[in-house]
Amino acid sequence: MINIAILGFGTVGSGVYAVLQKNAGLIARRAGQEIRVKRVLVLEVTENPELFTSSIDDILNDPEITMAAEAIGGVKAAYPYVKALLASGRSVVTSNKELVATHGAELLALAKEKGVAFLFEASVGGGMPLITPMCQSLLANQVEEVYGIVNGTTNYMLTRMSRENMDFAAALREAQQLGYAETKDPSDDVDGPDACRKIAILASLAFGKQVHTQNIPTRGIRGLEPFDLRAAARLGCAVKLIAWARQTETGPAVGVEPMLVPLENQLAGVEDVFNGVLVRGDMVGNVFFYGRGAGKLPTASAIAADLVLAAQQGAAVHNSIFWEPSPALPAPLTSGEPATYYVRVKGLAASMLPGLYGPGELVADDGGQAAYLAENITPKKLYEAARQVKALGGSVQMELRRLEQ
Amino acid sequence: MINIAILGFGTVGSGVYAVLQKNAGLIARRAGQEIRVKRVLVLEVTENPELFTSSIDDILNDPEITMAAEAIGGVKAAYPYVKALLASGRSVVTSNKELVATHGAELLALAKEKGVAFLFEASVGGGMPLITPMCQSLLANQVEEVYGIVNGTTNYMLTRMSRENMDFAAALREAQQLGYAETKDPSDDVDGPDACRKIAILASLAFGKQVHTQNIPTRGIRGLEPFDLRAAARLGCAVKLIAWARQTETGPAVGVEPMLVPLENQLAGVEDVFNGVLVRGDMVGNVFFYGRGAGKLPTASAIAADLVLAAQQGAAVHNSIFWEPSPALPAPLTSGEPATYYVRVKGLAASMLPGLYGPGELVADDGGQAAYLAENITPKKLYEAARQVKALGGSVQMELRRLEQ
Repeated sequence: MINIAILGFGTVGSGVYAVLQKNAGLIARRAGQEIRVKRVLVLEVTENPELFTSSIDDILNDPEITMAAEAIGGVKAAYPYVKALLASGRSVVTSNKELVATHGAELLALAKEKGVAFLFEASVGGGMPLITPMCQSLLANQVEEVYGIVNGTTNYMLTRMSRENMDFAAALREAQQLGYAETKDPSDDVDGPDACRKIAILASLAFGKQVHTQNIPTRGIRGLEPFDLRAAARLGCAVKLIAWARQTETGPAVGVEPMLVPLENQLAGVEDVFNGVLVRGDMVGNVFFYGRGAGKLPTASAIAADLVLAAQQGAAVHNSIFWEPSPALPAPLTSGEPATYYVRVKGLAASMLPGLYGPGELVADDGGQAAYLAENITPKKLYEAARQVKALGGSVQMELRRLEQ
Repeated sequence: MINIAILGFGTVGSGVYAVLQKNAGLIARRAGQEIRVKRVLVLEVTENPELFTSSIDDILNDPEITMAAEAIGGVKAAYPYVKALLASGRSVVTSNKELVATHGAELLALAKEKGVAFLFEASVGGGMPLITPMCQSLLANQVEEVYGIVNGTTNYMLTRMSRENMDFAAALREAQQLGYAETKDPSDDVDGPDACRKIAILASLAFGKQVHTQNIPTRGIRGLEPFDLRAAARLGCAVKLIAWARQTETGPAVGVEPMLVPLENQLAGVEDVFNGVLVRGDMVGNVFFYGRGAGKLPTASAIAADLVLAAQQGAAVHNSIFWEPSPALPAPLTSGEPATYYVRVKGLAASMLPGLYGPGELVADDGGQAAYLAENITPKKLYEAARQVKALGGSVQMELRRLEQ
């Protein structure tokens, strides 16, 4: 029997408790031993003091507890608690992407040093298996690229904007009403920081070195208009917020940005709050993972699997799930490679766009604004063109790179 | 260091050798130790007798060899060799779906008894991670349903038939020219036995008991006409060969059949030789795996991962990847549940179809034959209607169940 502690009893923490209760029999069989929740850390104990405690020391001083699931969120309390647990020789699993993206290298090294596991399958893609298959099932592969839809809230909004011709504000209101987006400040989702943390984790795993969020150029979906989604549809594309990381000739490049996704790509079919991630390995080619990117029970299901993986493999799990520390870089991890870009320009005659952006295709022109698909243009040339648009009295409203398959 | 033997040196066997050479460094790092191919079993040794041997005894009597990758195919030689290797206390991994579907329960029990692993990730979906994520990453889930496209050859043919309005014979010729289908006898692919073996494996894993191929109603894509694919498109569906297994109220049901797949379903976007499988867990909901279902290096990449899994977990892997033996059943594992069916009927006025099939929609009628979408009809009623069609001088040319999401 493994005695564990759950830190936090909000949506995720109570979900872990529920899953471990509900499917206790099959989890015990597949884990080879029973997993029992001995203590749950909460801010204030209002019931069952045998189970609940508000003191981390009750967990740290209990030699029966050998593992913990961190479900507090944020880094303020989670970081010192997780550190203390690992330092005390206990494995820790978490869905806390901020913690992993920020302190991952340090916590992984600490786990390895102490002979325990620090795992975080649920931090990206919720219940959808991704990190373990990418690192273990594809271990014979060099991961050349990993990209996809990792934020369910913005994907829900884009789905609504595209299907119902809804504008950004209306889609955001709906997402807030449904509890997908924060009411007070939805910027973590809509402006990309959430997706940025997730791709930082995937990129760090793929490249084997800490990728810092501050080095990842990040743009969310604010500013997108139904005009853009209609124009994209005419080009045989969906608009999706894509988090991506790949090896380029000049080194790793990572980003978060809304992109044109050709309908043939599996990612174009990822709708509503679902997540989908493509991993390209040098031996296997493209593989694709898809599932519910969030939610109480799906996330808890991934945490339960990590508990078992930690019990089975211990610190050996970090032969495959690991990255080295690395300082933040002075410059963002951009790529200078040419690509096809959609640009929407206001206050300038559409006829001027080919001259500014080079060869391409006029996609839409409603008099007030025009959309142009510029082919094979470098980011540098794109920047140059935007400067000229401004000098001519116009303004670039939107730029969307087209995903190449 | 782990010394392994490879049995067979055809496409798969030489692929395993190539992957273990090419990515030796990263595999060693992630496995925690080097994996070295010490012997390769071939029918006739023509070079390098230090490596190649035609005698299984050279492998069985070599105490340094602790694992083997079986890549002979079929069961005639593979079955006794794998049995002997497991009996001698060596882990075995394989991509041999016939071996696993036929002798899986026995070989799994033998591996467990001997304290070693018998693994077969590559037997379904080639290099795409599926079996390990389904059994380990989703271990906190009761798998309620698993279904998908597991035969690349027929999926390639259906893609061509649908995109190019090609008939079955022409699509088959093309698949044969490209080496996707056997030239001599393509029936293993086109009539469903290959998909049947693969779903037998997935169903056995999901239900924990041996599901026998002879209990799986299996129908391939022979008889499908461009007429059907066009009619399906009008209904917002693709036609795909679906292998499926699910828990119904009356017990497990399993099948292989061409189906109407609504375009919203992830499976509709699986084209060419790719595979895609949906797994529904009671906690996580739907997750979807997609990748190249066959091919030398993708398959070898999955075999390499299994070698490492066997080394890491040993017999403990069979807490999660396992099924019990179970006798073949006297009756097929059908489901009597009602569904929506597409039927194509020849030699009967289209106007008679609603009377025979009940409520539904006339989809197409070219005078010679008509297609009807019968709603909410039981297999029993469908069979009854087909009998009546025949009695009235007509004939049912095709029946396609519609996949419900």
